[in-house]
Amino acid sequence: MLTLPQLKQQVLEANLDLPRHKLVTFTWGNVSAVDRERGLVVIKPSGVEYAHMQVEDMVVVNLSDGQRIEGSKKPSSDTATHLALYREFADIGGIVHTHSRHATIWAQAGLDIPAWGTTHADYFYGAIPCTRLMTADEIEHDYELDTGKVIIETFRERGISPSAIPAVLVNAHGPFAWGKDAHDAVHNAVVLEEIAYMGIFSRQLTPGIGNMQQVLLDKHYLRKHGKNAYYGQ
Amino acid sequence: MLTLPQLKQQVLEANLDLPRHKLVTFTWGNVSAVDRERGLVVIKPSGVEYAHMQVEDMVVVNLSDGQRIEGSKKPSSDTATHLALYREFADIGGIVHTHSRHATIWAQAGLDIPAWGTTHADYFYGAIPCTRLMTADEIEHDYELDTGKVIIETFRERGISPSAIPAVLVNAHGPFAWGKDAHDAVHNAVVLEEIAYMGIFSRQLTPGIGNMQQVLLDKHYLRKHGKNAYYGQ
Amino acid sequence: MLTLPQLKQQVLEANLDLPRHKLVTFTWGNVSAVDRERGLVVIKPSGVEYAHMQVEDMVVVNLSDGQRIEGSKKPSSDTATHLALYREFADIGGIVHTHSRHATIWAQAGLDIPAWGTTHADYFYGAIPCTRLMTADEIEHDYELDTGKVIIETFRERGISPSAIPAVLVNAHGPFAWGKDAHDAVHNAVVLEEIAYMGIFSRQLTPGIGNMQQVLLDKHYLRKHGKNAYYGQ
Amino acid sequence: MLTLPQLKQQVLEANLDLPRHKLVTFTWGNVSAVDRERGLVVIKPSGVEYAHMQVEDMVVVNLSDGQRIEGSKKPSSDTATHLALYREFADIGGIVHTHSRHATIWAQAGLDIPAWGTTHADYFYGAIPCTRLMTADEIEHDYELDTGKVIIETFRERGISPSAIPAVLVNAHGPFAWGKDAHDAVHNAVVLEEIAYMGIFSRQLTPGIGNMQQVLLDKHYLRKHGKNAYYGQ
Repeated sequence: MLTLPQLKQQVLEANLDLPRHKLVTFTWGNVSAVDRERGLVVIKPSGVEYAHMQVEDMVVVNLSDGQRIEGSKKPSSDTATHLALYREFADIGGIVHTHSRHATIWAQAGLDIPAWGTTHADYFYGAIPCTRLMTADEIEHDYELDTGKVIIETFRERGISPSAIPAVLVNAHGPFAWGKDAHDAVHNAVVLEEIAYMGIFSRQLTPGIGNMQQVLLDKHYLRKHGKNAYYGQ
Repeated sequence: MLTLPQLKQQVLEANLDLPRHKLVTFTWGNVSAVDRERGLVVIKPSGVEYAHMQVEDMVVVNLSDGQRIEGSKKPSSDTATHLALYREFADIGGIVHTHSRHATIWAQAGLDIPAWGTTHADYFYGAIPCTRLMTADEIEHDYELDTGKVIIETFRERGISPSAIPAVLVNAHGPFAWGKDAHDAVHNAVVLEEIAYMGIFSRQLTPGIGNMQQVLLDKHYLRKHGKNAYYGQ
Repeated sequence: MLTLPQLKQQVLEANLDLPRHKLVTFTWGNVSAVDRERGLVVIKPSGVEYAHMQVEDMVVVNLSDGQRIEGSKKPSSDTATHLALYREFADIGGIVHTHSRHATIWAQAGLDIPAWGTTHADYFYGAIPCTRLMTADEIEHDYELDTGKVIIETFRERGISPSAIPAVLVNAHGPFAWGKDAHDAVHNAVVLEEIAYMGIFSRQLTPGIGNMQQVLLDKHYLRKHGKNAYYGQ
Repeated sequence: MLTLPQLKQQVLEANLDLPRHKLVTFTWGNVSAVDRERGLVVIKPSGVEYAHMQVEDMVVVNLSDGQRIEGSKKPSSDTATHLALYREFADIGGIVHTHSRHATIWAQAGLDIPAWGTTHADYFYGAIPCTRLMTADEIEHDYELDTGKVIIETFRERGISPSAIPAVLVNAHGPFAWGKDAHDAVHNAVVLEEIAYMGIFSRQLTPGIGNMQQVLLDKHYLRKHGKNAYYGQ
């Protein structure tokens, strides 16, 4: 298990990976990680430029109530969304939110990204869901918390496992992705952007394109995940 | 308040940010800033390459009549447009004009860029307007001045505040953006390009896509702007 | 003829060319080369990052049965596909598999890439074929081997020469390309990506676009290939 | 007037600008310049990599008959096309041929690029024409020379001045651009690529988009060209 300083370093590096992978413009986007033993979450500060971000800028908050424990800066304005997801999705260790171009395009279009190829199947065991629109009440009151709740509702009502499909599109907003830690979350966000790009033009070429074969989805997902995986070293 | 040499330095840097953000090709595009106390505008010279641009190349002209006050070079051919906007939009401090690819695509298509997501709402409080086509008379006589006038007319007739929507598309031409200073104007031009890109493909995915919910537009715009803002440090 | 250490070096370099040409994300993609005298194939290890890849990571396997002869790492999970192609296509020396964006878009759309211009004709003597969907049985049992078999079937049933058209799209998956050696295979993979990109938008501009003239295809292909070639030094 | 060594240096630099502006992949594309006093043309050698190109690789040929005068390498396979254009278009000093992505997309679609905005109007005084398809006879016999002839025919039959519209799309092939010298030709090729990109998506947004106003085309073209130009220093 990582110490808290190590976790802060990892969250910093994962945040710095966002501009490196061209997932963010300016200060958009944020990565966090959870320390479930200590009940703490480390997250990027709000509105700080990546070029000047230091490990001491990382903010530590309580998982339970979001109270700031360490750090002089305000945490990301999306902190309440991250916390809601950590509290509900027990197996995830890191979360990333971006406005990456092509995932955001699908979010703005209000559409799921269907599984149309093995690139998708290697990482996501089915379509990436797009949430319903939020109600006026949800938006006006606990907006960031309710963003988390509408994500959770989406997974619960559709019976999707957040481990099997580690990303979501928030309608008219943009993507969240997660993983076993902060780096894994960023990794999934990069893949999400890649399949979002390809999906736009696969559909342009073949407008009525159906889902990929379930058996091919199974094959690719399961050769990289679970007890029979045989990809990698 | 900045001294005139400081303002020239800032305008130089803001101009150099244009190629850095991939908003310009060759010498296309120009940034200016206004010093309202002294009644002066600092603007990029016409047709000078960014790679060789120096602070002493910046041209200082009168806000009232465009007369050159400092600098040996001719000011940008779009100077009259900048001046018209500064005289009418009392709260803006910097202006940028580019032919950035995706904003220009919308300008060539003659369409407003609707608010389709929170990336848009974080910066622009509604659709980015596209001006009407200019008349032959406007084009043939005081073209650059009249380009400014048609922008002003667009905002006035539609009742749009230039502070709430700090950008416009000039029909069959390209975008102008502005802000509290030269850097802020460039920042808005980058965001404009980003939402212009995403809008093209959001509409491809969902052709009849409606405006985003007003309540969500309010939420995102107002959490970053105005007296109840809570984004950033 | 290259020694085995030279071949391993060449396969390493060809693999490193993949991120250089922006054909891969993360560890996706793999290049191999065959030594037909010795009956050996050199291939990239599975799931190793390009940034840390060394010549000693390259894996040497038997052409006939895939048994590992040299190297401590597991070979690419796609090894069986490479071997099947080497055994059937007697004239090829190197193979590359990627999920490059635009070739994969066509693969996901389940479509051949037609010959629509001289860029295509300079390298590929006709459409790049897309394979049929694989059966559940093929996917569930010898998946990687059967991927090779369905490629071979595609070329045989359509009467295509793998020398004349050194690439294929595996349906719902992505491209394989090959050539006289590993570098040539990567070269063809780059060209494939280029024509895949251009094809998407050529078809957008002219939806009913027909194949290019056979006489122009002949002219361009044959001025670069075969005994009457006159391109290059 | 430049000496021949100076002209060779300029042609080398203009060729090296092609990968810098991302107009070429591998060895595709070539730039030449003419010395009308001496009746000579300097052109890139065929199939030589840009990374290793030296001034002594430049080939000097006769304008009248293409005979090689200087250099040990074979000239570009497109040399006869360049020569035909120099002989017919008396005012041009440099020519560039590329397969740049978006201009080639229009060429493959067999369509002119209409003037849809002021970016276009700043450089091209009307649509960029796309040639007719070549006949079997033209393709099979003097292909490269006849490519030049079909370009010339396009300008003559449509009454287009090559000075006013310094570029063409060869149907199912790709663009040629030209200018007063080699650098100017490359400059125009960059602009062509830019407007080709923007045109694809302007038409996607507004499918029935008409030509821009003639008066606006006049204004922008003439403020940069001819005796009343007022752009630049």
